[in-house]
Amino acid sequence: MEKVNLAQKFGLFDEYWSPKIAGTLNGQHVKLAKLKGGFIWHCHEDEDELFLVVKGRLIIKLRDGDIELNEGEFLVVPRGVEHKPVADEEVHVLLFEPIDTLNTGNVQSELTKVDLDEI
Amino acid sequence: MEKVNLAQKFGLFDEYWSPKIAGTLNGQHVKLAKLKGGFIWHCHEDEDELFLVVKGRLIIKLRDGDIELNEGEFLVVPRGVEHKPVADEEVHVLLFEPIDTLNTGNVQSELTKVDLDEI
Repeated sequence: MEKVNLAQKFGLFDEYWSPKIAGTLNGQHVKLAKLKGGFIWHCHEDEDELFLVVKGRLIIKLRDGDIELNEGEFLVVPRGVEHKPVADEEVHVLLFEPIDTLNTGNVQSELTKVDLDEI
Repeated sequence: MEKVNLAQKFGLFDEYWSPKIAGTLNGQHVKLAKLKGGFIWHCHEDEDELFLVVKGRLIIKLRDGDIELNEGEFLVVPRGVEHKPVADEEVHVLLFEPIDTLNTGNVQSELTKVDLDEI
Protein backbone atom coordinates (compact mmCIF):
# COMPACT_ATOMS: atom_id res chain seq x y z
CA MET A 1 0.00 0.00 0.00
CA GLU A 2 1.71 3.17 -1.18
CA LYS A 3 0.46 6.69 -1.50
CA VAL A 4 0.38 8.38 -4.88
CA ASN A 5 1.70 11.90 -5.35
CA LEU A 6 -0.04 13.33 -8.40
CA ALA A 7 2.67 15.82 -9.36
CA GLN A 8 5.36 13.14 -9.09
CA LYS A 9 3.36 10.76 -11.28
CA PHE A 10 2.66 13.41 -13.93
CA GLY A 11 6.40 13.96 -14.07
CA LEU A 12 6.95 10.39 -15.24
CA PHE A 13 5.47 10.68 -18.72
CA ASP A 14 5.04 13.15 -21.55
CA GLU A 15 2.68 11.58 -24.08
CA TYR A 16 -0.67 13.19 -24.66
CA TRP A 17 -3.94 11.22 -24.76
CA SER A 18 -2.30 8.16 -23.23
CA PRO A 19 -3.83 7.51 -19.79
CA LYS A 20 -1.74 5.77 -17.14
CA ILE A 21 -3.14 3.69 -14.31
CA ALA A 22 -2.36 5.23 -10.93
CA GLY A 23 -4.75 3.23 -8.77
CA THR A 24 -7.27 0.37 -8.75
CA LEU A 25 -10.25 -0.04 -6.44
CA ASN A 26 -13.67 -1.63 -6.55
CA GLY A 27 -13.38 -2.54 -10.21
CA GLN A 28 -12.45 1.03 -11.09
CA HIS A 29 -9.25 2.66 -12.23
CA VAL A 30 -7.76 5.98 -11.26
CA LYS A 31 -6.00 7.16 -14.39
CA LEU A 32 -3.76 10.13 -15.05
CA ALA A 33 -3.52 11.72 -18.46
CA LYS A 34 -1.91 14.70 -20.13
CA LEU A 35 -4.09 16.21 -22.81
CA LYS A 36 -3.33 18.78 -25.48
CA GLY A 37 -5.27 19.58 -28.61
CA GLY A 38 -8.60 18.07 -29.56
CA PHE A 39 -9.69 14.48 -29.05
CA ILE A 40 -12.39 12.69 -31.02
CA TRP A 41 -16.12 12.64 -30.44
CA HIS A 42 -17.05 9.43 -28.64
CA CYS A 43 -19.17 8.03 -25.86
CA HIS A 44 -18.97 5.10 -23.47
CA GLU A 45 -21.99 2.84 -23.76
CA ASP A 46 -21.73 1.32 -20.31
CA GLU A 47 -19.46 3.55 -18.28
CA ASP A 48 -19.78 6.91 -16.60
CA GLU A 49 -16.51 8.84 -16.71
CA LEU A 50 -15.14 11.41 -14.29
CA PHE A 51 -12.68 14.11 -15.36
CA LEU A 52 -10.94 16.02 -12.57
CA VAL A 53 -8.61 18.78 -13.71
CA VAL A 54 -5.39 18.79 -11.69
CA LYS A 55 -3.64 21.47 -13.75
CA GLY A 56 -4.69 23.65 -16.65
CA ARG A 57 -8.02 24.12 -18.41
CA LEU A 58 -10.08 21.50 -20.20
CA ILE A 59 -13.10 22.00 -22.41
CA ILE A 60 -15.55 19.11 -22.58
CA LYS A 61 -17.54 19.62 -25.74
CA LEU A 62 -21.03 18.16 -25.63
CA ARG A 63 -23.60 18.09 -28.40
CA ASP A 64 -25.58 20.77 -26.62
CA GLY A 65 -22.75 23.01 -25.44
CA ASP A 66 -19.33 23.18 -23.84
CA ILE A 67 -18.29 22.82 -20.22
CA GLU A 68 -15.05 24.44 -19.10
CA LEU A 69 -13.13 22.75 -16.31
CA ASN A 70 -10.36 24.51 -14.46
CA GLU A 71 -8.01 23.25 -11.76
CA GLY A 72 -9.98 21.74 -8.89
CA GLU A 73 -13.12 21.11 -10.93
CA PHE A 74 -14.62 17.82 -12.07
CA LEU A 75 -17.36 16.61 -14.35
CA VAL A 76 -19.08 13.24 -14.57
CA VAL A 77 -20.01 12.43 -18.15
CA PRO A 78 -22.80 9.83 -17.94
CA ARG A 79 -22.73 6.71 -20.09
CA GLY A 80 -24.10 7.22 -23.56
CA VAL A 81 -23.37 10.95 -23.69
CA GLU A 82 -21.18 11.98 -26.61
CA HIS A 83 -18.25 14.18 -25.65
CA LYS A 84 -15.04 15.57 -27.08
CA PRO A 85 -12.31 16.81 -24.74
CA VAL A 86 -10.31 19.77 -26.01
CA ALA A 87 -7.26 21.37 -24.40
CA ASP A 88 -5.81 24.52 -25.92
CA GLU A 89 -2.79 24.16 -23.67
CA GLU A 90 -1.47 21.12 -21.84
CA VAL A 91 -3.81 19.95 -19.12
CA HIS A 92 -3.37 17.29 -16.46
CA VAL A 93 -6.46 15.27 -15.60
CA LEU A 94 -7.38 12.52 -13.21
CA LEU A 95 -9.99 10.05 -14.48
CA PHE A 96 -12.19 7.65 -12.50
CA GLU A 97 -13.85 4.96 -14.54
CA PRO A 98 -14.45 1.20 -14.70
CA ILE A 99 -11.42 -0.95 -15.42
CA ASP A 100 -12.59 -1.95 -18.90
CA THR A 101 -13.21 1.60 -20.13
CA LEU A 102 -11.55 2.38 -23.46
CA ASN A 103 -10.36 5.94 -23.94
CA THR A 104 -12.13 6.28 -27.28
CA GLY A 105 -15.28 4.54 -26.06
CA ASN A 106 -17.48 3.38 -28.93
CA VAL A 107 -15.05 4.60 -31.62
CA GLN A 108 -12.13 2.56 -32.90
CA SER A 109 -9.36 4.97 -33.77
CA GLU A 110 -5.62 5.25 -34.02
CA LEU A 111 -6.01 7.08 -30.72
CA THR A 112 -7.45 4.00 -29.01
CA LYS A 113 -5.17 2.81 -26.21
CA VAL A 114 -5.20 -0.72 -24.82
CA ASP A 115 -3.03 -2.34 -22.17
CA LEU A 116 -2.39 0.88 -20.32
CA ASP A 117 0.78 1.26 -18.31
CA GLU A 118 0.70 1.47 -14.56
CA ILE A 119 2.73 4.25 -13.03
CA MET B 1 -24.83 17.55 -16.09
CA GLU B 2 -23.01 20.18 -14.04
CA LYS B 3 -19.39 20.53 -13.15
CA VAL B 4 -18.29 20.49 -9.53
CA ASN B 5 -15.88 23.07 -8.16
CA LEU B 6 -14.21 21.52 -5.13
CA ALA B 7 -13.41 24.79 -3.34
CA GLN B 8 -16.97 26.03 -3.81
CA LYS B 9 -18.41 22.78 -2.44
CA PHE B 10 -16.10 22.75 0.57
CA GLY B 11 -17.37 26.26 1.32
CA LEU B 12 -20.91 24.94 1.77
CA PHE B 13 -20.41 23.04 5.01
CA ASP B 14 -18.43 23.15 8.21
CA GLU B 15 -19.02 19.86 10.04
CA TYR B 16 -16.14 17.50 10.52
CA TRP B 17 -16.35 13.76 9.78
CA SER B 18 -19.59 14.19 7.86
CA PRO B 19 -19.01 13.29 4.20
CA LYS B 20 -21.18 14.93 1.53
CA ILE B 21 -21.98 13.38 -1.82
CA ALA B 22 -20.56 15.44 -4.68
CA GLY B 23 -20.93 12.94 -7.51
CA THR B 24 -22.24 9.50 -8.44
CA LEU B 25 -20.89 7.20 -11.14
CA ASN B 26 -20.71 3.47 -11.82
CA GLY B 27 -22.14 2.56 -8.43
CA GLN B 28 -19.57 4.73 -6.69
CA HIS B 29 -19.78 8.01 -4.83
CA VAL B 30 -17.43 10.94 -4.89
CA LYS B 31 -17.64 12.36 -1.38
CA LEU B 32 -16.14 15.46 0.16
CA ALA B 33 -15.30 15.66 3.83
CA LYS B 34 -13.66 18.01 6.28
CA LEU B 35 -11.66 16.19 8.92
CA LYS B 36 -10.11 17.42 12.13
CA GLY B 37 -8.90 15.42 15.10
CA GLY B 38 -8.81 11.65 15.27
CA PHE B 39 -11.38 9.23 13.88
CA ILE B 40 -11.95 5.68 15.07
CA TRP B 41 -10.18 2.51 14.02
CA HIS B 42 -12.33 0.66 11.48
CA CYS B 43 -12.21 -1.22 8.23
CA HIS B 44 -14.56 -1.80 5.32
CA GLU B 45 -15.18 -5.48 4.75
CA ASP B 46 -16.18 -5.21 1.11
CA GLU B 47 -15.03 -1.83 -0.11
CA ASP B 48 -11.71 -0.30 -1.07
CA GLU B 49 -11.56 3.37 -0.13
CA LEU B 50 -9.65 6.20 -1.77
CA PHE B 51 -8.55 9.30 0.16
CA LEU B 52 -7.33 12.25 -1.93
CA VAL B 53 -6.14 15.26 0.06
CA VAL B 54 -7.36 18.50 -1.48
CA LYS B 55 -6.10 20.76 1.30
CA GLY B 56 -4.07 20.18 4.43
CA ARG B 57 -2.36 17.10 5.80
CA LEU B 58 -3.92 13.78 6.74
CA ILE B 59 -2.36 10.89 8.58
CA ILE B 60 -3.77 7.45 7.83
CA LYS B 61 -2.80 5.27 10.75
CA LEU B 62 -2.44 1.61 9.90
CA ARG B 63 -1.67 -1.26 12.23
CA ASP B 64 1.84 -1.46 10.82
CA GLY B 65 2.64 2.24 10.49
CA ASP B 66 1.39 5.65 9.41
CA ILE B 67 1.06 7.15 5.96
CA GLU B 68 1.12 10.93 5.64
CA LEU B 69 -0.90 12.47 2.84
CA ASN B 70 -0.42 16.05 1.76
CA GLU B 71 -2.26 18.11 -0.83
CA GLY B 72 -2.30 16.34 -4.18
CA GLU B 73 -1.67 12.90 -2.72
CA PHE B 74 -3.99 9.93 -2.50
CA LEU B 75 -4.07 6.51 -0.91
CA VAL B 76 -6.24 3.50 -1.62
CA VAL B 77 -6.98 1.57 1.57
CA PRO B 78 -7.92 -1.96 0.48
CA ARG B 79 -10.96 -3.69 1.90
CA GLY B 80 -10.34 -5.40 5.20
CA VAL B 81 -7.42 -3.16 6.20
CA GLU B 82 -7.91 -1.41 9.52
CA HIS B 83 -7.22 2.30 9.43
CA LYS B 84 -7.67 5.41 11.53
CA PRO B 85 -7.56 8.84 9.86
CA VAL B 86 -6.06 11.62 11.97
CA ALA B 87 -5.87 15.32 11.12
CA ASP B 88 -3.98 17.63 13.46
CA GLU B 89 -5.41 20.61 11.58
CA GLU B 90 -8.46 20.83 9.32
CA VAL B 91 -8.04 18.83 6.15
CA HIS B 92 -10.23 18.64 3.07
CA VAL B 93 -10.46 15.24 1.43
CA LEU B 94 -12.14 13.72 -1.58
CA LEU B 95 -13.27 10.13 -1.14
CA PHE B 96 -14.10 7.65 -3.85
CA GLU B 97 -15.90 4.51 -2.76
CA PRO B 98 -18.95 2.31 -3.44
CA ILE B 99 -22.33 3.86 -2.79
CA ASP B 100 -23.11 1.69 0.22
CA THR B 101 -19.86 2.42 2.08
CA LEU B 102 -20.38 3.52 5.69
CA ASN B 103 -17.88 6.03 7.06
CA THR B 104 -17.19 3.90 10.14
CA GLY B 105 -17.10 0.66 8.19
CA ASN B 106 -17.47 -2.37 10.44
CA VAL B 107 -17.87 -0.28 13.61
CA GLN B 108 -21.16 1.13 14.80
CA SER B 109 -20.44 4.43 16.51
CA GLU B 110 -21.98 7.77 17.28
CA LEU B 111 -19.76 8.92 14.42
CA THR B 112 -21.58 6.67 11.93
CA LYS B 113 -23.32 8.74 9.25
CA VAL B 114 -26.22 7.47 7.17
CA ASP B 115 -28.32 9.23 4.56
CA LEU B 116 -25.54 11.56 3.52
CA ASP B 117 -26.45 14.93 2.03
CA GLU B 118 -25.73 15.73 -1.57
CA ILE B 119 -24.05 19.03 -2.22
